[in-house]
Amino acid sequence: MSYIKVPGDIEKRSFEIIEEELGDKAKKFSESEMPIVKRIIHTSADFEYADLIEFQNNAIESGLKALEKGCKIYCDTNMIVNGLSKPALSKYNCSAYCLVSDKEVIEEAKKEGLTRSIVGMRKAGKDPETKIFILGNAPTALYQLKEMIENGEIEKPALVIGVPVGFVGAAESKEEFKKLGIPYITINGRKGGSTIGVAILHGIIYQIYKREGFHA
Amino acid sequence: MSYIKVPGDIEKRSFEIIEEELGDKAKKFSESEMPIVKRIIHTSADFEYADLIEFQNNAIESGLKALEKGCKIYCDTNMIVNGLSKPALSKYNCSAYCLVSDKEVIEEAKKEGLTRSIVGMRKAGKDPETKIFILGNAPTALYQLKEMIENGEIEKPALVIGVPVGFVGAAESKEEFKKLGIPYITINGRKGGSTIGVAILHGIIYQIYKREGFHA
Repeated sequence: MSYIKVPGDIEKRSFEIIEEELGDKAKKFSESEMPIVKRIIHTSADFEYADLIEFQNNAIESGLKALEKGCKIYCDTNMIVNGLSKPALSKYNCSAYCLVSDKEVIEEAKKEGLTRSIVGMRKAGKDPETKIFILGNAPTALYQLKEMIENGEIEKPALVIGVPVGFVGAAESKEEFKKLGIPYITINGRKGGSTIGVAILHGIIYQIYKREGFHA
Repeated sequence: MSYIKVPGDIEKRSFEIIEEELGDKAKKFSESEMPIVKRIIHTSADFEYADLIEFQNNAIESGLKALEKGCKIYCDTNMIVNGLSKPALSKYNCSAYCLVSDKEVIEEAKKEGLTRSIVGMRKAGKDPETKIFILGNAPTALYQLKEMIENGEIEKPALVIGVPVGFVGAAESKEEFKKLGIPYITINGRKGGSTIGVAILHGIIYQIYKREGFHA
């Protein structure tokens, strides 16, 4: 059958189509924001994300610096951990982890009647090497992170990708988090999810590749 | 802060909201289709999926039977494998796997200049225990599966969840696959993805839970 079978060609052509169809909407994004917006649309086939995404407080540069130095990335789903490019992370001595399936976390969540996301976040917050957070599922994790930062329990993260998807609390949690004034990338409203979180981080880390002359 | 922190309550309320907002659109779905549609919207916050989903050739019943008997599920991304509920799968002696990161597959793909998805699919197709396929990423995997079924190289699967997302070949591959006339669930057009594939399988497997009186 006559369909494109060469991996590089498929991705290249996809990004060209996205750019064409974005049209004038592309103008509102900076040079470092565009690869992220395009990667989200590539992963969702949903152009609405170009209207919903928001970048705050120098989020991309701050995230890039943390990635270049090497850091841990806490994710609120194992799907995000799994979706992140291991070669890209290990190239910069970064690693990703999730605690919602951690035995201790599961037990504590049951005992306290809380979501595993809240309990997992409490534990992740105590690790000073964790500089980046990708939350694609749980509004409760985003609220918990906000509380810990506000109360001075943890240092301000280098970057929070706060993109929980859903109908109960997701939009509100993402809005609330803006008040902190820290480096933050979010999807306004209900949309988001694990694949969107992955796309955003990849959209950032591949910028280091590009600067260094690698093909992304 | 006053937000819902109890996991069961959040999911219950989410599904109520989805049902309310679906309104009349819900009427076109059967009793066994509805949980799948709702789960997709729950995972994407995107009501357009109610217009795009298509169920063919008794897909749900055929999938349910294979799951109840116990089978292997081939997924075209590790994210799908990771997102599937392990307790639910192992309860019915089912297991999920992906071959795109398999060493042999990577080498062969490089050698032949093909996508790893094509080569992974060729290998998975040879395993007679694999009765269900979830393809959320690669149109090339869906084309490859179609070829193998058409040529009689493999038995007809019990269920194919064919939901690759993307701009190059995704919509076409999903449309082409319909011609086979086998149990098939798809998302027409460009949308889909790993989280959508997971939501569909969960929407099916939790129906066994329900029949057996478990909480889903």
